[in-house]
Amino acid sequence: MAGSQLESLEKTLEKYIPPDELKDVRRILFGNDTKKLELSKCAVEAALERDFELQGCMFEAGHEQLRQPRVVRVGLIQNAIVLPTDAPVTEQITALHRRVGEMVEVAAMCGVNIICFQEAWTMPFAFCTREKMPWTEFAESAEEGPTTRFCQELAKKHNMVVVSSILERDEVRGDTLWNTAVVVSNSGVVLGKTRKNHIPRVGDFNESTYYMEGNTGHRVFQTHMNGAEIIFNPSATVGGLSEPMWPIEARNAAIANHCFTCAINRVGTEHFKNEFTSADGNKAHKDFGHFYGSSYVAAPDGSRSPGLSRTRDGLLVAELDLNLNRQINDKWGFKMTGRYDVYAHELTEAVQDDFKPNIVKE
Amino acid sequence: MAGSQLESLEKTLEKYIPPDELKDVRRILFGNDTKKLELSKCAVEAALERDFELQGCMFEAGHEQLRQPRVVRVGLIQNAIVLPTDAPVTEQITALHRRVGEMVEVAAMCGVNIICFQEAWTMPFAFCTREKMPWTEFAESAEEGPTTRFCQELAKKHNMVVVSSILERDEVRGDTLWNTAVVVSNSGVVLGKTRKNHIPRVGDFNESTYYMEGNTGHRVFQTHMNGAEIIFNPSATVGGLSEPMWPIEARNAAIANHCFTCAINRVGTEHFKNEFTSADGNKAHKDFGHFYGSSYVAAPDGSRSPGLSRTRDGLLVAELDLNLNRQINDKWGFKMTGRYDVYAHELTEAVQDDFKPNIVKE
Repeated sequence: MAGSQLESLEKTLEKYIPPDELKDVRRILFGNDTKKLELSKCAVEAALERDFELQGCMFEAGHEQLRQPRVVRVGLIQNAIVLPTDAPVTEQITALHRRVGEMVEVAAMCGVNIICFQEAWTMPFAFCTREKMPWTEFAESAEEGPTTRFCQELAKKHNMVVVSSILERDEVRGDTLWNTAVVVSNSGVVLGKTRKNHIPRVGDFNESTYYMEGNTGHRVFQTHMNGAEIIFNPSATVGGLSEPMWPIEARNAAIANHCFTCAINRVGTEHFKNEFTSADGNKAHKDFGHFYGSSYVAAPDGSRSPGLSRTRDGLLVAELDLNLNRQINDKWGFKMTGRYDVYAHELTEAVQDDFKPNIVKE
Repeated sequence: MAGSQLESLEKTLEKYIPPDELKDVRRILFGNDTKKLELSKCAVEAALERDFELQGCMFEAGHEQLRQPRVVRVGLIQNAIVLPTDAPVTEQITALHRRVGEMVEVAAMCGVNIICFQEAWTMPFAFCTREKMPWTEFAESAEEGPTTRFCQELAKKHNMVVVSSILERDEVRGDTLWNTAVVVSNSGVVLGKTRKNHIPRVGDFNESTYYMEGNTGHRVFQTHMNGAEIIFNPSATVGGLSEPMWPIEARNAAIANHCFTCAINRVGTEHFKNEFTSADGNKAHKDFGHFYGSSYVAAPDGSRSPGLSRTRDGLLVAELDLNLNRQINDKWGFKMTGRYDVYAHELTEAVQDDFKPNIVKE
């Protein structure tokens, strides 16, 4: 499958478009060029040996008199599942721990302060099957499950904040399942968790069959890593459905909110033992389509990093000067000029039962 | 100036990238291909003679049993100013009426039902100067000004809804100025107006020096043209500031709201008599930079039309089957699955004086 896939949009553009025109094309598509971040030789060699892509880039901010640069390095990991989807559950989890663990080691060599894995990273994205077993067996406690313990070890060992998206089982509250991102502090403490709010009901993403709309609202996690002005979005999404939206949404969020966003997608094609249908009139089949990777970081000034490949495991290391956020806030000022009071009022009216839209007719 | 400008992103991609890879590049960047809309020979010839670009495209929807296709043709006009910015005000307005009028004639030949002009289309985008005279003399009554009367004539003559963005002077309320889009029904009646809500305070866009935050909220205008499921955004924005955001924002809005959006930018470089500074440490100068056109239509499924050129006057005719909106709504279901009650609640809290953000610390 991967062989027939375009490796990366950016590489294709670079291959064919002459440098002087490429400059304009890149500016229009991706904003100001990001600088390449030089990574240590040992990290580059380890990534080569462990067979994953390693990219580094930098987002710089202007000099300020009263604040030092607030530089933080984030790592985005995208990876294919390791074992076949019908291997025993514990073996699949352990193999993924091992694979992601060796990628995190390289992130540590690159000085990464905060690492984020893809959505439901300890399991195949099996919700397309609509089967409950064995998939719900991948669910764990967010506070005490083996994956959180594994992340705590990584965090302590590498002095790194870990954002770990798992299928959560809440045994205390009726064995409820959630799609949960656990945030582990660099000290190894579970800082907290946030549950996915908006559960898609689209295509083969039968997520609402498995877990509920989150009840944790929109939390901000303050770490020791220079404050929290980054939105991490661990995702899992396939080409046919969403790829043209992928370069749009995270960048729009970064621009609209004057912050950095990290969009992380899984990679590869996952095959399941039992065939399933996709409610599209086509025959039953055993895969969900190609997860196209392409993980990237977007900045508040409309620029973005290159994407990781569409086909391979990868680690993207991005050095962010968080001062850029307030600088862009001061430049564009959406938080001040945006009509948030109007939006709050109109949105509050719009969710009422007796809402009447404001329609002007002749 | 225009000579040194890239003509269009799409044309550059088509020129260099081989067809098989171009297909993937186009899919990732622009979503499903739109079909070309064949336009009448007389329209093509008239556009050639009147020296503007004419493009046509189609957004189709799937067949439904209970609804006929609800097809509407929209026209987007981008144009440079006609006379020098120091020509007498009335002559400038009249010249723009004449230019846009002859473009609307071609839109009529193309069967356009709803036409939208660029932001503040009757004047240079002179707010960069921070001078009041003569620029505020371009302001008119939204209900009875010469431009609205001109649009009413166009509307009746061509049986076309006209969306006309002007600098409005509200004489009754203390001569307040607004940035207002007037909606004229195809019958020639002024259906209503909506005033720009969020006034940027960025770069040379000293808009807040001239007019106030709108007080008309978010209105929907219901016309006889098959219902209102289109957001028109008449804009005026320049390359250095915003061009990488241009392909993002309107598409994101179309995707997030399951509707069509039309993004219209002016074109060309406007020179002013008096020099002005840009608060960027650079020397005083007499122009605002290049308005990069690139007007386009975005669809709820993430697809988009090609953009008009970055350099020339142009008319984009897009045929939309509005049934696509509900079809995509039924597919993605954001209006149902989105947590609008949560967002309304959190946003209402966030605009309170005593708001305390929900921050989780170790």
